[in-house]
Amino acid sequence: MNAFRPAIRAMHGYTPGEQPQDRRYVKLNTNENPYPPSPRVAQALMQAVGAELRLYPDPVADVLRHTAAAVYDVSPEQIVVGNGSDDLLTMLVRACLGPGDRIAYPVPTYSLYDTLVALQEAEAVRLPFPSDFSLPAELGRARARLTIVCNPNSPSGTLTPTEELGRLAREVEGLLVVDEAYADFADDNALRLLRECDNVVVLRTLSKSYSLAGLRVGLAFAAPPVIAELMKVKDSYNVNRLSIVAGVAALEDQAWMQTNVARIRATRARLIAALRERGFEVADSHSNFVLARRPGVSQRGTYEALKEGGVLVRWFGIDGLEDALRITVGTDDEVDALLAALSG
Amino acid sequence: MNAFRPAIRAMHGYTPGEQPQDRRYVKLNTNENPYPPSPRVAQALMQAVGAELRLYPDPVADVLRHTAAAVYDVSPEQIVVGNGSDDLLTMLVRACLGPGDRIAYPVPTYSLYDTLVALQEAEAVRLPFPSDFSLPAELGRARARLTIVCNPNSPSGTLTPTEELGRLAREVEGLLVVDEAYADFADDNALRLLRECDNVVVLRTLSKSYSLAGLRVGLAFAAPPVIAELMKVKDSYNVNRLSIVAGVAALEDQAWMQTNVARIRATRARLIAALRERGFEVADSHSNFVLARRPGVSQRGTYEALKEGGVLVRWFGIDGLEDALRITVGTDDEVDALLAALSG
Repeated sequence: MNAFRPAIRAMHGYTPGEQPQDRRYVKLNTNENPYPPSPRVAQALMQAVGAELRLYPDPVADVLRHTAAAVYDVSPEQIVVGNGSDDLLTMLVRACLGPGDRIAYPVPTYSLYDTLVALQEAEAVRLPFPSDFSLPAELGRARARLTIVCNPNSPSGTLTPTEELGRLAREVEGLLVVDEAYADFADDNALRLLRECDNVVVLRTLSKSYSLAGLRVGLAFAAPPVIAELMKVKDSYNVNRLSIVAGVAALEDQAWMQTNVARIRATRARLIAALRERGFEVADSHSNFVLARRPGVSQRGTYEALKEGGVLVRWFGIDGLEDALRITVGTDDEVDALLAALSG
Repeated sequence: MNAFRPAIRAMHGYTPGEQPQDRRYVKLNTNENPYPPSPRVAQALMQAVGAELRLYPDPVADVLRHTAAAVYDVSPEQIVVGNGSDDLLTMLVRACLGPGDRIAYPVPTYSLYDTLVALQEAEAVRLPFPSDFSLPAELGRARARLTIVCNPNSPSGTLTPTEELGRLAREVEGLLVVDEAYADFADDNALRLLRECDNVVVLRTLSKSYSLAGLRVGLAFAAPPVIAELMKVKDSYNVNRLSIVAGVAALEDQAWMQTNVARIRATRARLIAALRERGFEVADSHSNFVLARRPGVSQRGTYEALKEGGVLVRWFGIDGLEDALRITVGTDDEVDALLAALSG
């Protein structure tokens, strides 16, 4: 039986951060929000649980598009909703990349991009970030159909100024995708570029700042002709009824999200200071995680000791990142537990 | 800007059945179950709505795999869970079909297959069913990586005997996918083929018999090496926390599902008899819908008059099906409303 494409047989799947189902950890490895979603989410879900679950969801989640349009000051035709922003990334690569087609992005970054490239048998132009994580100058000249900038970037937590992204959008030949999963934790974002550039796609997720990782809601913002193409490749009913309801409720409670973001930013400052005191090199972070390095010293042992001690952080164990740990900003108590475990 | 693949620019997306958000219809157009999901689903969801929604779901939904394994008497390693069975079909075509690779299926059938083929730029061998909807003999000799049989078939409602599918599985070169979205409404199914054939994939959904279309839960059953390849192409967190919880609760209440299936089968018999009395040609149905024809007479007018009268059915308006309406088996009251509207 030779049913599978050789490229699939040859690849490993994407490895998500550990989601242990066995024991309770202080879980600082997958950038989840330590605070619960808005109480309005639970209220809305309780009302939505009932006989209507027998019916298909609205294929385009219009109520959620309208809510997001109002919150982000765009039109609903500039929005497509995804089953998490991973689903939106999948739509983008399927819509744009056939075998051998080119995609460019700076690395290290969100490693799912590599997996999606392999699935499409596309050609990835992976440009190393310089040590300050500023954009590689070659990025705009890669002649790629898709250029992706994760901003703030994971795992570095660093932020490229929006003005630079605007210049990049004018330089690239195809679409510039700004993956803003962490934008609510930063001081700026690229949404305003939609007014100037018809080739910019901004991705958001409700998984991080809105505390809804469990419900898979992502939003892509772009010019209506771009959205129309993405709609063709999305699964017909990609976002379910309860996710739509929860997404609307979460977006309608901006104050709840902003309060949690402010708390996380305060804890982040404290975490960065404490890690620097302990001798780690930590870049300023614009996200809900920090990258802590001991240059040249593998952090595998630290990762394993922390896990043994009940604290999960992310050690990637790939070229150039062996000496780093990515640590999600949890509650103050969780950060205290981490710091105690590091000292222990 | 030339970011999009030519194949995407040229295609129309899949058109799902109407999901009107404006007014209430007697909705007999998308094969939803007229009865609500098990009360256990609501109970389980109420308990799951809470702070844990901030956390990602289990990437492989192991609790749901274990529940399904017990219900269907297979091992968890023989199961991958999808965001609806559409997601599983997407995984299959992405794993198996590059540009020009061959897929075969009899037509007319579930039209999403055509959309997925276009997305992959694959080569579809579309073999017309004979008028009795038995399998075209050429199907097994198409030298395709994927052969799909929707069984019971939509929109015909007809059933291919499992023994024939077993012969087909041994004849094809690649995978035989038996799309059993409607199998719970039939007298037989192909799950036992998994014990004999390592190239059979059986797809199930909780959308129809379990009344969970709104929550998007599909199950693929296959040999563990096949499941392992499909896992590589699925989105990391494709099924959300509440869908997992609801899926487990629904599967654990087999009696609820069977009771509703029995009611639908009884109503189906009455609907078929009434339609035949009114001069429609209706094949025996093994699903929760019937295909009603007036050979050679377009049913567009009937579809429109019914919609005007508040009853939605499906008219496909494609070659060979202009003279047919696909009508979902609703409650007895809904079927009475349909029959009254047809006479009116």
